[in-house]
Amino acid sequence: MDFEITAQVAAFGGEQGVYKHRSSATGTDMVFSAYVPPRESGTKLPIIWYLSGLTCTHANVTEKGEFRRACSELGLIFVAPDTSPRGDRVPDDDAYDFGQGAGFYVDATEAPWSEHFRMRSYIEEELPALIAESFPVDMKSQGITGHSMGGHGALTIALRSPARFKSVSAFAPISSPLNCPWGHKALSGYLGPDRQKWREYDACALIEDGRRAPRILVDQGMADGFLAEQLKPELLEEACKSAGQPLTLRRQDGYDHSYYFISTFMEDHLRWHAERLFG
Amino acid sequence: MDFEITAQVAAFGGEQGVYKHRSSATGTDMVFSAYVPPRESGTKLPIIWYLSGLTCTHANVTEKGEFRRACSELGLIFVAPDTSPRGDRVPDDDAYDFGQGAGFYVDATEAPWSEHFRMRSYIEEELPALIAESFPVDMKSQGITGHSMGGHGALTIALRSPARFKSVSAFAPISSPLNCPWGHKALSGYLGPDRQKWREYDACALIEDGRRAPRILVDQGMADGFLAEQLKPELLEEACKSAGQPLTLRRQDGYDHSYYFISTFMEDHLRWHAERLFG
Repeated sequence: MDFEITAQVAAFGGEQGVYKHRSSATGTDMVFSAYVPPRESGTKLPIIWYLSGLTCTHANVTEKGEFRRACSELGLIFVAPDTSPRGDRVPDDDAYDFGQGAGFYVDATEAPWSEHFRMRSYIEEELPALIAESFPVDMKSQGITGHSMGGHGALTIALRSPARFKSVSAFAPISSPLNCPWGHKALSGYLGPDRQKWREYDACALIEDGRRAPRILVDQGMADGFLAEQLKPELLEEACKSAGQPLTLRRQDGYDHSYYFISTFMEDHLRWHAERLFG
Repeated sequence: MDFEITAQVAAFGGEQGVYKHRSSATGTDMVFSAYVPPRESGTKLPIIWYLSGLTCTHANVTEKGEFRRACSELGLIFVAPDTSPRGDRVPDDDAYDFGQGAGFYVDATEAPWSEHFRMRSYIEEELPALIAESFPVDMKSQGITGHSMGGHGALTIALRSPARFKSVSAFAPISSPLNCPWGHKALSGYLGPDRQKWREYDACALIEDGRRAPRILVDQGMADGFLAEQLKPELLEEACKSAGQPLTLRRQDGYDHSYYFISTFMEDHLRWHAERLFG
C-alpha cells in the first residue's frame, strides 16, 4: 500500500512521523501520525491506537499528548488517525460537532454522508492493514484508547472486536451516544432515525447486548464542562456493573476536558496497556 | 501588580495558568504562562524561566514543551514569557525574524522599535517583580533556559546577571548574533550599526569580555536546519574554552530544531536545573 511521508522527526530516541495516503474506505486522502520508539532492528512492537475527539486531527495528540516519553521507555508504537474524511468535495456542517472533524467512527448510511464518512471501515480494516504492512508492528499485540468522541470510538471498536485488542482505555469518553446531545445529533445524521441501528455505536448498549472487552480503564476529569450533559460516565459504570464487564473508572478531581488532562494521565494509560500487551 | 487570569487548568497535580498584564516596559499588554506544581501550602519553590524562539508566543512551549511532568516531580515553577510586544500599534516587519515575535530580548534604541521593544527590561526587571509578588516563588533559586533566539536570551541574561541565576541551559541557542544573519538583522535593526553596542547581547562576546555564568548546559540537534548558518555552537564552545567558562555541550545526532527535539531533552534540562537550585 502506498503512502506519502509528510514529516519524520527524531523524538525520544525514536521517530515521530506524519503520513498521508489515499483511502478507499473514505474516498479521500487521509493523514495519520505514527511514533515508532527506538528498537532493535528486526523486532516488532505492540501498537496503541489513539482516536481523537471532536474538531481534532492527528496533530492535537501528536503535539500535546506527551505520549512519546512513555512509548519510548515501554516500546510501544503509537498511531493517531484523523477524526473524519476532509476536503472541499466532502460534505460538511457548520457545527463543530457534526461533519468534518466529527466522524464519530461510524460507517454512515444516510446521504450525503454515506459516500465518504466511513471511519469505522477505515479504523477497523483499511488503516490496520496499511500499518501492518508498513510499520514494525506486532498485530497480535494491539491496544486502543481515545478521548471524548475518540473514547467512544475506542470503547465501541474494542467491544465489537475483542479478539483484536488485548487492552482498552479511554479519556473522558462519550459513554452513551444514545443518551446525549452529541450522540443524538451525530448518529441520527449519519445513521438515520432508527435508534436500533445506533446500538453498535454505543458502548453501554454493546455491553447490554452481551459484548465484552478486556478490563476497561477510564479517566474522567470532574471539572470537565461536558461531564453531566455529554459524557455521563455513570452510564458506563452502571452498564458494566449490570453486565459484569470489568471497568476501572477513575474520577479525577479538578481536571477538565483538555490535553492538559489527557497528558497528565497518558503515562498511566500507556503503562496499563503495556502490562497487558507484554503480559 | 495587577494581572488578569486568562486560563488556569489542572495538570500533573499542579496548575497551568496563562496570564495577561499591562507592561510598563513595553507599553503594551503582555501574556505569559506559569506552571505551579503541587506543593505544601506556604512553601516557595525555585523558578525556571523559559525564553522562546522566533515566531513563538508563550503558547508553543506551554503546549508542546512537555515540562510539566518533571516540574511536578521536581517541584519547579516554570514561567514562559512572550517573545516581543504585540498589537496593532506596535511596529512590525513582514519577516518572521524581525519585529513582532522576534524581540531578541534586547532594549531597542532605534526608531521605531525603541518605544515598545524593551524585552530586556521586561524579562530582567518587570516580569520578575510581578512573579515574585504574585506566585509562590523562591527568588533566590532561579534558573533560566530557552530555545534558539530564546537560548541566546537565556545565555546573555545569565551572563549579565550571574548573581540572579544558579543554573542556565539552552536548546539550540543562537551562539553569537554578531556572527549570523539572524543576529545581524535584529541587532542592527534594534540597536543600530555600532557593533560594539551589540556585545552585551552576544553570549560569546560577553564571555570574551569577562562575564561568567554557572556551568552552561546546551543541547544541539545535528539535523537542525539552522545549525551551520545561524546557531554555530562551535563559536560558544571556543569562547567558553578560551575563557574558562564551564560548558556542557551535547551534540544530538538526528534531532532537528523543533519542539520534538526540545521535549525530548526537556527533562534532562529540568533535572540539571533542579540539581543546582536545590543544591
